[in-house]
Amino acid sequence: MQKNIPYFALLLTCLEMKIEIITIGDELLIGQIVNTNSAWMAAELTTQGFGVDAMTTVGDAPGDLLAALDTAFARADILLLTGGVGPTRDDRTKETLCRYFDCPLILNEEVLQHIEQLFQSRKATLNSLTRDQALVPSKATVIPNRVGTAPLLWFRKGAQLLVSMPGVPLEMQTAMREEIMPRLSATFRQKAYLRRDYLVGGYSESALATHLSSFEDQLPASFSLAYLPTYGIIRLRLSAWGEEHTATMEQQGKHLRELLGSHCLSESNQMVEQLLGELLQEKRFTLSTAESCTGGYIAHLITSVAGASGHFTGSVVAYDNHIKEILLQVETETLSQKGAVSREVAEQMARGVAAVTGTTCAIAVTGIMGPDGGSEEKPVGTVWVATLCGERLSSREYRVGKSRAQNIERTARLAILQMLMMLQ
Amino acid sequence: MQKNIPYFALLLTCLEMKIEIITIGDELLIGQIVNTNSAWMAAELTTQGFGVDAMTTVGDAPGDLLAALDTAFARADILLLTGGVGPTRDDRTKETLCRYFDCPLILNEEVLQHIEQLFQSRKATLNSLTRDQALVPSKATVIPNRVGTAPLLWFRKGAQLLVSMPGVPLEMQTAMREEIMPRLSATFRQKAYLRRDYLVGGYSESALATHLSSFEDQLPASFSLAYLPTYGIIRLRLSAWGEEHTATMEQQGKHLRELLGSHCLSESNQMVEQLLGELLQEKRFTLSTAESCTGGYIAHLITSVAGASGHFTGSVVAYDNHIKEILLQVETETLSQKGAVSREVAEQMARGVAAVTGTTCAIAVTGIMGPDGGSEEKPVGTVWVATLCGERLSSREYRVGKSRAQNIERTARLAILQMLMMLQ
Repeated sequence: MQKNIPYFALLLTCLEMKIEIITIGDELLIGQIVNTNSAWMAAELTTQGFGVDAMTTVGDAPGDLLAALDTAFARADILLLTGGVGPTRDDRTKETLCRYFDCPLILNEEVLQHIEQLFQSRKATLNSLTRDQALVPSKATVIPNRVGTAPLLWFRKGAQLLVSMPGVPLEMQTAMREEIMPRLSATFRQKAYLRRDYLVGGYSESALATHLSSFEDQLPASFSLAYLPTYGIIRLRLSAWGEEHTATMEQQGKHLRELLGSHCLSESNQMVEQLLGELLQEKRFTLSTAESCTGGYIAHLITSVAGASGHFTGSVVAYDNHIKEILLQVETETLSQKGAVSREVAEQMARGVAAVTGTTCAIAVTGIMGPDGGSEEKPVGTVWVATLCGERLSSREYRVGKSRAQNIERTARLAILQMLMMLQ
Repeated sequence: MQKNIPYFALLLTCLEMKIEIITIGDELLIGQIVNTNSAWMAAELTTQGFGVDAMTTVGDAPGDLLAALDTAFARADILLLTGGVGPTRDDRTKETLCRYFDCPLILNEEVLQHIEQLFQSRKATLNSLTRDQALVPSKATVIPNRVGTAPLLWFRKGAQLLVSMPGVPLEMQTAMREEIMPRLSATFRQKAYLRRDYLVGGYSESALATHLSSFEDQLPASFSLAYLPTYGIIRLRLSAWGEEHTATMEQQGKHLRELLGSHCLSESNQMVEQLLGELLQEKRFTLSTAESCTGGYIAHLITSVAGASGHFTGSVVAYDNHIKEILLQVETETLSQKGAVSREVAEQMARGVAAVTGTTCAIAVTGIMGPDGGSEEKPVGTVWVATLCGERLSSREYRVGKSRAQNIERTARLAILQMLMMLQ
């Protein structure tokens, strides 16, 4: 605790503290990359009882960051910065922080040693730009960055706090998990974040809201119910801040669960691929996929979950019709008579991949993702999904949309959802 | 033009206007979803000559948005809002805008008709929550939302502008492309955004910066050079605002290109999968992939590029070793003697998939993505990539990292890069 802060001020900060995430970089402002850091940090902070109040993104120009710091310090207590700390000239966060806190850069011997060791282990030669990474603002408390060259900088400003981290996702994540979160938890008293998640199928957003209207009427003011519709499913989140609401949350959550009935696919915030993985493990079933238009994305979603090798054997991405014939035993006649995008081909693909891989279950998908390839009869967005489990085979047609990237994403989620519903 | 604004004020706005993107939703502040809208909007705006100065994210609570509007109007001329306009109670942007602009909600007959038509075409019944989407702040100019129920709202505040859009990505994108961008272009004079991109391989970030040090020294102050390292490649961006720099950009860009020499993989901001696709088309080669640890992600990246069917035939995702044997003809003996993660297995997978699919080229990948499956000899992050082109076969070992999601991403990009380098 710094000497010049009255004790009550610090206590207030502990109880009512506000957090702002500031991400820095022109690449964000021109839309060259998507800001995944803010979401990752927010999820980590929220889970550990720290609420994020705002997120701001500014460019590399020092003036813009200076103005953002003024704004943020006027409304938040903890500022978490990422970005702008690389060795190149476009990275200017460190010099801006020197200006903001009115202090010079000084050489930190420990950081220098760490950088030298890092380069030795990578068998790379150290140049002067990288050596300059060991120069730090004199007013900062320096925290080592185990996986990179830019150190973490921790500044106090009265009762307020600013932490500067690298923008490279892996470095930021390691810093947050290993250094920043433990220090925040030790310094500030966090509030319990109570949260119940429900995955709901078979409702439109407004139909579900109508169904839950009286439930929302009686919900205490400190509780909030949020709707997040994604690919045929609605993620419903009931939440409240503060341990004192535990009993009420228990009771309200139960009530909500009853109202959802069989429409509740899961009491979790998991993705459909996670739910499917768990269900397959539980039933000791195995799965393979045969993908045409999704081009391997379903297999990717399934294998992005750790432990997928326990139930997933593989996939045949039959982008070309010839592959559908030779690897999946789809009949040439069916392809020519019904077309590649048809119920019959989807079903033959599902049977074919289950047979060749020897799995209990299979997902097969064929469709037109666009921008080209559509016809009047089968416009872009036409998709057939067949799911197989033992002897049971189910197939369904979907119309997904007009944008290729979204069509692939949506088709994959809908296919996994169809498999999930078949197994439930 | 509104009557109460002096002409010179509006002209100033045209020339020096600042844009702020405000995204609204608790789901962003708790990290439940990644903010892809801001990046998409920024890319669209930048391409059309509008610079984005800041991005802000706030929650659903009206007080937070009100405060953010005050801050944003104090520093920006155009505020683009997304989110908080759905039919459910957690969506409160419209009511907040009524408070901010001090006006009531009124029924807009045109919007109501549009909603009714939309529901008729979807064969869905209209409930009162959805009907309420036709209530709009009386001071707003209402712009139709062709693909959803929430109308676009356009507010003038003196010489400043605020536009509210839905947060659903497809609706926001349609609104931006079809309604907002044309109106912004007609209302404001935009500046040309001059930009040259270079994909650079074979340099670390600091080594490249050292190499380009004298180039940066002589670069005019209105130009900026940005480094964005991603998966073994550095994206270099030379940029400047304003048509008057066209000739200098031409000359500086040429100079930079010469300095990069053979390290320059492409003069573009394309992803490696796009470059590979173009190169394959140009050479009239075909490609297939055999993926173990990447689980279909390489095939997904390749097929995410429109027109991939012209050169990509398909993939065998051989997650299980048995599939490697039956579909890719990997020898049982090699698997047991060398292990699935080995040069020999990667090479047999590449040869196997090229043989079965009949392609000129093939990419094969086998590795350990974690968190489990590592050993002392082959830790998590060990990857073998084999690339084949005709008779030429090249294989290489990589060590990618410790986080599963990043390992999959990095491995896929490195594998595509290896194929690209082989073909160049």
